[in-house]
Amino acid sequence: MPGDVLLLSNSRPPGGAAPFAHAREILASHLGGRPVWFVPYARADHDDYVAWVSRALGQDIDLRPLHREPDPAATIADARAVFVGGGNTFRLLHDVRRLGILDGLRANPDCRYTGSSAGTNLACPTMRTTNDMPIVDPGGFDALARVPFQVNPHYLDPDPTSTHQGETREERIVEFHEMNPEPVVGLREGAWLHRTDDTLRLGGNTARLFRRDETPVELAVGDDLSWLLTPS
Amino acid sequence: MPGDVLLLSNSRPPGGAAPFAHAREILASHLGGRPVWFVPYARADHDDYVAWVSRALGQDIDLRPLHREPDPAATIADARAVFVGGGNTFRLLHDVRRLGILDGLRANPDCRYTGSSAGTNLACPTMRTTNDMPIVDPGGFDALARVPFQVNPHYLDPDPTSTHQGETREERIVEFHEMNPEPVVGLREGAWLHRTDDTLRLGGNTARLFRRDETPVELAVGDDLSWLLTPS
Repeated sequence: MPGDVLLLSNSRPPGGAAPFAHAREILASHLGGRPVWFVPYARADHDDYVAWVSRALGQDIDLRPLHREPDPAATIADARAVFVGGGNTFRLLHDVRRLGILDGLRANPDCRYTGSSAGTNLACPTMRTTNDMPIVDPGGFDALARVPFQVNPHYLDPDPTSTHQGETREERIVEFHEMNPEPVVGLREGAWLHRTDDTLRLGGNTARLFRRDETPVELAVGDDLSWLLTPS
Repeated sequence: MPGDVLLLSNSRPPGGAAPFAHAREILASHLGGRPVWFVPYARADHDDYVAWVSRALGQDIDLRPLHREPDPAATIADARAVFVGGGNTFRLLHDVRRLGILDGLRANPDCRYTGSSAGTNLACPTMRTTNDMPIVDPGGFDALARVPFQVNPHYLDPDPTSTHQGETREERIVEFHEMNPEPVVGLREGAWLHRTDDTLRLGGNTARLFRRDETPVELAVGDDLSWLLTPS
């Protein structure tokens, strides 16, 4: 069995609480005391990012800054657990590719994976369901495929009172399905997906599942979504 | 002097009015009776898209569907005016590159350019300030550079009541400036930029100007922004 996977929609809970305050229990249970390499490349200031997460989680988790390693690709190829933080998915994929970390993670499927926001996008077959601005060409959109479906983090329901004429999130996912077949789980703020062995469950908050040419369906906390791991 | 440029934030006015109802006068004045090739590739259904725009503008404008031409690249290389419609910027850039239309437009700088939303992104140095989902790899992010700055269409002010923990639009543009130097004009719904010869003016609605390491500034309808055409 490949390593377990925990995919969070977001790092910051609403209301200004500390990062991951909403997910401490699931993080501790998922990581189980393993040393965890934190991947900060989705943000510009890596030291600042690691300090912010360490202040929040350092007492629970043995968090280690990957960007401080002399050879991050070699470190990650031997890692038992990794935590890829959020920020800009284009910058993240660009940097982990350039530094050899993407290949290192692909060569180490047993490594327990944790992602938040952009880190969740990186675990999907491609980064094609990110919400981020394309501030840099990542050199290809393929990602890690640690799960066989796509996630849209920070999923937002349409606001019926809005006068904004840009696409709603649902319209953007319909556009995705005009060109791609993979199911998309829209994870609302506070939600996560947890894969252990061949079981997949939704936690933290509800989500919305989009499949090509089908009506979207609502998913509830605790739902068993294991069938998404073996796409037809 | 290269051909004049009109860049609209959006095609749909709020409230369900016909497309471009807010911009009929500026469109007629900008196009001045020229035959206009409409570029529908940002959306999946090209015939449907052209029919929707023709119903709204067909009496004012001599609108011609580029996708119906036997050799769209050759047609565009001789065109006197082009109108690139909105939709998904990644799909648009992917398709105009694949069909040779991107090179045709680059070889025809005198062609009068009109863009809306994704079509506005295509006129910028790169497509790196689009809001769209990256549903397909466009094969490079460089665009037409018909203006030397970036535009963010459908610019949205932060909502102080929101509990959403994704990045605000302003935070996304700050991320853009962490990796790119070009100024970004955030065009609110209903706004447009109009370049005639060496003059640039804002119309339709207000906008917000973002420059690297500077405090953003508000722009008013009628403001002369010609200085943005000769970046220091």
